[in-house]
Amino acid sequence: MEFPIGAIAKMLGGELLAPEKAGVIVNGVASLDTGGPGDLAFLWNPDFAEQAKTTKAEVVVTAEAIEGVPCILVKDPQAAMLLILQQLYALRHPAPKAGVHPKAHVEESATLGEGVSVGATAVVEAQATIGAKTQIRPGAYIGRGAQIGKECVIHPNATILDYVQVGDRTTIWSGAVIGKDGFGFVPNSGDRRDLSKGTTRIPQIGTVTIGDDCEVGATATIARGALDNTVVGDQVVIDDQVFIAHGCHVEQNVVMLGRSGLSGGAKVEKNTYIMGGACIGLGRTVGEGSIVGSGAVVIYSSVAPGSEVLGAPHRPAMQERRLQVTLSKLSDQLPDLRKRVKKIEKKLAE
Amino acid sequence: MEFPIGAIAKMLGGELLAPEKAGVIVNGVASLDTGGPGDLAFLWNPDFAEQAKTTKAEVVVTAEAIEGVPCILVKDPQAAMLLILQQLYALRHPAPKAGVHPKAHVEESATLGEGVSVGATAVVEAQATIGAKTQIRPGAYIGRGAQIGKECVIHPNATILDYVQVGDRTTIWSGAVIGKDGFGFVPNSGDRRDLSKGTTRIPQIGTVTIGDDCEVGATATIARGALDNTVVGDQVVIDDQVFIAHGCHVEQNVVMLGRSGLSGGAKVEKNTYIMGGACIGLGRTVGEGSIVGSGAVVIYSSVAPGSEVLGAPHRPAMQERRLQVTLSKLSDQLPDLRKRVKKIEKKLAE
Amino acid sequence: MEFPIGAIAKMLGGELLAPEKAGVIVNGVASLDTGGPGDLAFLWNPDFAEQAKTTKAEVVVTAEAIEGVPCILVKDPQAAMLLILQQLYALRHPAPKAGVHPKAHVEESATLGEGVSVGATAVVEAQATIGAKTQIRPGAYIGRGAQIGKECVIHPNATILDYVQVGDRTTIWSGAVIGKDGFGFVPNSGDRRDLSKGTTRIPQIGTVTIGDDCEVGATATIARGALDNTVVGDQVVIDDQVFIAHGCHVEQNVVMLGRSGLSGGAKVEKNTYIMGGACIGLGRTVGEGSIVGSGAVVIYSSVAPGSEVLGAPHRPAMQERRLQVTLSKLSDQLPDLRKRVKKIEKKLAE
Repeated sequence: MEFPIGAIAKMLGGELLAPEKAGVIVNGVASLDTGGPGDLAFLWNPDFAEQAKTTKAEVVVTAEAIEGVPCILVKDPQAAMLLILQQLYALRHPAPKAGVHPKAHVEESATLGEGVSVGATAVVEAQATIGAKTQIRPGAYIGRGAQIGKECVIHPNATILDYVQVGDRTTIWSGAVIGKDGFGFVPNSGDRRDLSKGTTRIPQIGTVTIGDDCEVGATATIARGALDNTVVGDQVVIDDQVFIAHGCHVEQNVVMLGRSGLSGGAKVEKNTYIMGGACIGLGRTVGEGSIVGSGAVVIYSSVAPGSEVLGAPHRPAMQERRLQVTLSKLSDQLPDLRKRVKKIEKKLAE
Repeated sequence: MEFPIGAIAKMLGGELLAPEKAGVIVNGVASLDTGGPGDLAFLWNPDFAEQAKTTKAEVVVTAEAIEGVPCILVKDPQAAMLLILQQLYALRHPAPKAGVHPKAHVEESATLGEGVSVGATAVVEAQATIGAKTQIRPGAYIGRGAQIGKECVIHPNATILDYVQVGDRTTIWSGAVIGKDGFGFVPNSGDRRDLSKGTTRIPQIGTVTIGDDCEVGATATIARGALDNTVVGDQVVIDDQVFIAHGCHVEQNVVMLGRSGLSGGAKVEKNTYIMGGACIGLGRTVGEGSIVGSGAVVIYSSVAPGSEVLGAPHRPAMQERRLQVTLSKLSDQLPDLRKRVKKIEKKLAE
Repeated sequence: MEFPIGAIAKMLGGELLAPEKAGVIVNGVASLDTGGPGDLAFLWNPDFAEQAKTTKAEVVVTAEAIEGVPCILVKDPQAAMLLILQQLYALRHPAPKAGVHPKAHVEESATLGEGVSVGATAVVEAQATIGAKTQIRPGAYIGRGAQIGKECVIHPNATILDYVQVGDRTTIWSGAVIGKDGFGFVPNSGDRRDLSKGTTRIPQIGTVTIGDDCEVGATATIARGALDNTVVGDQVVIDDQVFIAHGCHVEQNVVMLGRSGLSGGAKVEKNTYIMGGACIGLGRTVGEGSIVGSGAVVIYSSVAPGSEVLGAPHRPAMQERRLQVTLSKLSDQLPDLRKRVKKIEKKLAE
């Protein structure tokens, strides 16, 4: 990108407080910390106000003037930043041309909407349907009877297995695997604890449904349900390496950070954060609007709506933090107490 | 599927207790909870007896009559369920036609058994051998000299690297990577703790052998051995995102749940459960018939045969549960004790 | 391989202490433990001196004679082992022929160096550049504008997305995904804790840069930066299933073992071990030359240079080991103490 600062101010509907900079070219966006000459930066989060004062960026988009720093004043710097970044991103990652690449394979009974692109070495199986303007990138696989909505991006080497349903404007990243059979087995011994006679698979005849405006991260896995479907609601954003077992239900507006996981039949109610590495055990529920902290393991009980929990096993966040402080001193305090009690006992015995 | 209930009862060799239902069509299988008109349900696990009483499913396959619920009586409802589900599953996921797809690539020196299918964009390298009726699905990769048994399914975008050996009737799911070089390095400094001179790779000349009737989950990884092979026995079922390092030995009839892991050289003896997220440390052994609980980390010592362990680091399950109860009260009890002991000391000093 | 022992001794510049063995053929390399007739073994690590005394290997390469065992004496048995293993490995895994396979797809504007091989069903997008002698193996994907150095190996089904930069002699394993967009979102509610209005993606316009002589394990993921790049230095070795979020900075000579992870913006200074399953939290730093132990979670604070830490949350290793010993006895000692204090209080009250 190469734009004069004046043009950017105009595009953002902002006021350039340093008019002498109107003709200066910016050719990149940077953080306040790392920005230098030629960089556009944004003070979009008040946490960074201090960095803004000493930034070396060419110009800063901000809601309030910063002394000594060339600024573009706008009402909503976050919205301005998103606008600029979206345009830059689109320039850097242009959509592939519509059509089926000659080195792709699309089964005859599959249905492709208008403007769909299927990249080289991608495969679309029989009876699959792909909505308008969806991109099936190279090496991606769409299984038999799968239904992908419109304006989705299925990134290179992603795998969407048979009958999986994906809503509109949803992104599935590379290496993700959606719709692998859920992990259902019965021991042939008839006794759950006795594996000595091997196991028999329970065929999984459910599927996975994913809503609109979702994102599924790289190498994330979502297994298909045994009888009922595994369900992911609208506006659910799932980071890399997230694990979702069969029969789980994730309601809308849930954010699952890197490498978090749901065991079989777990439920996450809407508007909830599952932080990095956190795990929800077999059949447990996380209530609406909760925050399950980094690395927390929800195993012995469910989480009530509106809770914040931490720890493995999980406890209310305040309680877990207090416990960790207690533990920091435990190796000193416990032996000390034992010594003192012994001394007292001795004294009293005398 | 669309079958009259009478036909289903006959197929299962069962007795229809509601003969007036013989002509009613069922077109799906559901759980007792979610089943409705047109659904077939199964009371195959006594845990669900209560749900069976209020189910809305069209008919329930069960070993004993349920009052007020139309039933098909059979001797073994679990076997009946597996039979029906297997047939449904086979209908939904028909095997691909035998033969090599024109958009696949099979090296000339590879050997394909009778009835093998190689899907579009799959690759089979030189000197690989694929057993009869095995399916190599689209995008799957079979490395040089790899040996895959008969009646296996290698799912889309799975990767089986050079010389890996897979037994008969084994399923490898999408995104799994079998036979990547084990993680063996020596620091160039000659001192294990000093990385400042970089590291040199120890070439890994072992391979991975996987037995018969196994399953390896989506994006699971099994690394090849340094000198000796990494070995997975027969009837081992491995869930998604499981991690197995080089030189591990997993005996037969082991179940490894989602995201469990084995560090280098770890051994899991037969008939053992490794529950979700559990990890076995470098060179540790889990004895026969054990259960390593969810999230347990076996690091400071091995696990004796027949044990049940929990916690990170692991402890006998009973002891870990007791510890967690103790910890729940620790932040109250410890300061309280300290206060009381101080008070006593003061009193005695007077 | 099939070589007479005499020839091996000569190749290693060593002295065969058992000249009568000069004509005996060895056809494999094995560990001291499992070696038998026809096997070459190495006493390269003094830890294995005991096993060497009873090995059944045909001949042992060693720095000092072992009584009763046929030996080849060399100055540096580790170097000798690496030399033999590298040759064996090269024999077993020959490099593919240079050139673009007819079933690969390389965009016209991509640049391939001399001796590059692009395997069947691999894809190289527009404006990508691939350095001399680099292997792009079957099913691998190289995104638009990506720059891969010389003598790299990009293994089957690895995914390198747009604009990612990889240095020379670096290996990316199967299933790895480099350059997926970092996980950056803003809640539409304007309040970080309120997800009820959904989220808007922050476009990630940084990329990932990986240095020379690195290795990235199977299904590992490294996300692209928001504004600044995610950076991995030279000689960094990354095991399978490792997770690196956006904006992280890993300096040179870092070793990250299986399934370790870095949250957004985390920094790992040079010469550091991140052991298996260990995680570094949002924005935390691990100082130079540290060891973050297996399963440790660095979340509440950073790690000073030269530290060894353990536990979740992390503590100095000694302190964590002491804590675990304390905890082993806590469930007995705490109730006992409470009983004794109560008794004392009663006595004093009397």
